[in-house]
Amino acid sequence: MMKRGDYTTIDVPESAARSSSSKEKAPAMVAAAPVPRPTGWNKGLAIFDLILRISAIVAALAAAASMGTSEETLPFFTQFFQFQAGYDDIPTFQFFVIAMAIVGGYLVLSLPFSIVCMVRPHAAGPRLLLLISDLVALTLTTAAGAAAAAMSYLAHNGNPNANWLPFCQQFGDFCQKATGAVVGSFIAAVLLSVMVLISTVALRRV
Amino acid sequence: MMKRGDYTTIDVPESAARSSSSKEKAPAMVAAAPVPRPTGWNKGLAIFDLILRISAIVAALAAAASMGTSEETLPFFTQFFQFQAGYDDIPTFQFFVIAMAIVGGYLVLSLPFSIVCMVRPHAAGPRLLLLISDLVALTLTTAAGAAAAAMSYLAHNGNPNANWLPFCQQFGDFCQKATGAVVGSFIAAVLLSVMVLISTVALRRV
Repeated sequence: MMKRGDYTTIDVPESAARSSSSKEKAPAMVAAAPVPRPTGWNKGLAIFDLILRISAIVAALAAAASMGTSEETLPFFTQFFQFQAGYDDIPTFQFFVIAMAIVGGYLVLSLPFSIVCMVRPHAAGPRLLLLISDLVALTLTTAAGAAAAAMSYLAHNGNPNANWLPFCQQFGDFCQKATGAVVGSFIAAVLLSVMVLISTVALRRV
Repeated sequence: MMKRGDYTTIDVPESAARSSSSKEKAPAMVAAAPVPRPTGWNKGLAIFDLILRISAIVAALAAAASMGTSEETLPFFTQFFQFQAGYDDIPTFQFFVIAMAIVGGYLVLSLPFSIVCMVRPHAAGPRLLLLISDLVALTLTTAAGAAAAAMSYLAHNGNPNANWLPFCQQFGDFCQKATGAVVGSFIAAVLLSVMVLISTVALRRV
C-alpha cells in the first residue's frame, strides 16, 4: 500500500512540475502527501497502548494476588490432621503465581517505555523492544493461564479414568478464587495480544 | 525512517524534472528510490518465514499425531476390566490434539500466503493477515502445550496433597508419547513466535 502510494504520488509532482515549472510551491505541497497521518495517529496508538498496559497490570497483579491468597481451612479436623488447601499444594498454581507476578512486574517496568513511545511517536527502538517483550509476556501469561485452567478443571471435575477425585466440593472458596485468577490471566493475555498488534501497526508508521 | 526517506527522495525527482523537463525517463528511474532495500531483504525474510513455517507444520502435526496415537493396554487384565490408557481419557490431552491439529491445518493453509509474500515482498495485506493469524496460532499452541505439560507433570509425579496418584509407572509408553508431543508443541510455539517477529520486521519495510 505504501509502495503503490509512493509510485503514484511521485507521478503527480513530476507531471505538475512539467506542466507548470514556474510554480515553486506545488511540489512541496505534494511532497507531504506520502505520509498520511504523521504524528497524531501514532500518538493515539501510544495512548491506547498505555491505557491497555495499565489495564493489563491490574489484571495480571489481581490474578497473581487472587491466586496467591487463595487458601482455605476446613472447619473440622481430626486428631492428627487439619484439612487445608492452598495454592502451594499444586505446583501449577505456584507457577501461575510466579508467572503472573513476573508479567505484572514487567508491565509496570514497561510503562516508561510506553510513555517514551507516546512522547516520541516515531521512535522505532522502544517500540520494537516493547513488541518483543510483550510477545514473551503474552506467551508466559497464556502458558500460566492455560496450565492453571487445566488444573482448575481437574479440581472441579476430577478424572475418573485416572482415579483423580475432585476436591472443589470440599474446598469451594479455594477453587472459586483460583478460577477467578485464571479468568484474570486470560484477560491479561487478550490485552497483551492487542498490545502486540498495536505495536505492529505503530511500527509500520514509524 | 520511512517517513524521512520519503521526504528526501521526493525532492530528487522534483528537481530532476525541473532541471531537465525534456528527459521523460528520469522520474521513472528515481521513483524506485524511496524503498531503501527494495526486494532482497524482504524476500530473504519471506524465504526464512517459509522455511520456519514448514518446520512448524512438521512440529505441530507430529505433536498432534504423537498425542493422538498414544495409547497403551496393559498386558494383564481381570475378569471385568482391562487396564487401558489413551489420550481421550484426559480432556486436556483431547484439547491438545484438537488444538495442534487446528494449528497444523492453519499452517498448511497459510503456505500460499507465505509464498505470495515471497513473490511480492512489498504486499502489506498478506503479511498483516499472516501476522494476526500467526499470533492466534501462537497463543493456541502455547495454551495447549502448557495445559498438556501440566497434565503430563501430574501423570508423572501425581499430587499427594490432592490425593492424585501418578500413573506413569504403569503406563510408561503412554506417558512418554504424551511428553514427546508436549515437546513438539513447544518447538512449534518457538517457531511461531520467531515467525511473528519476522512478519513484524518485514512489515516495517513494506
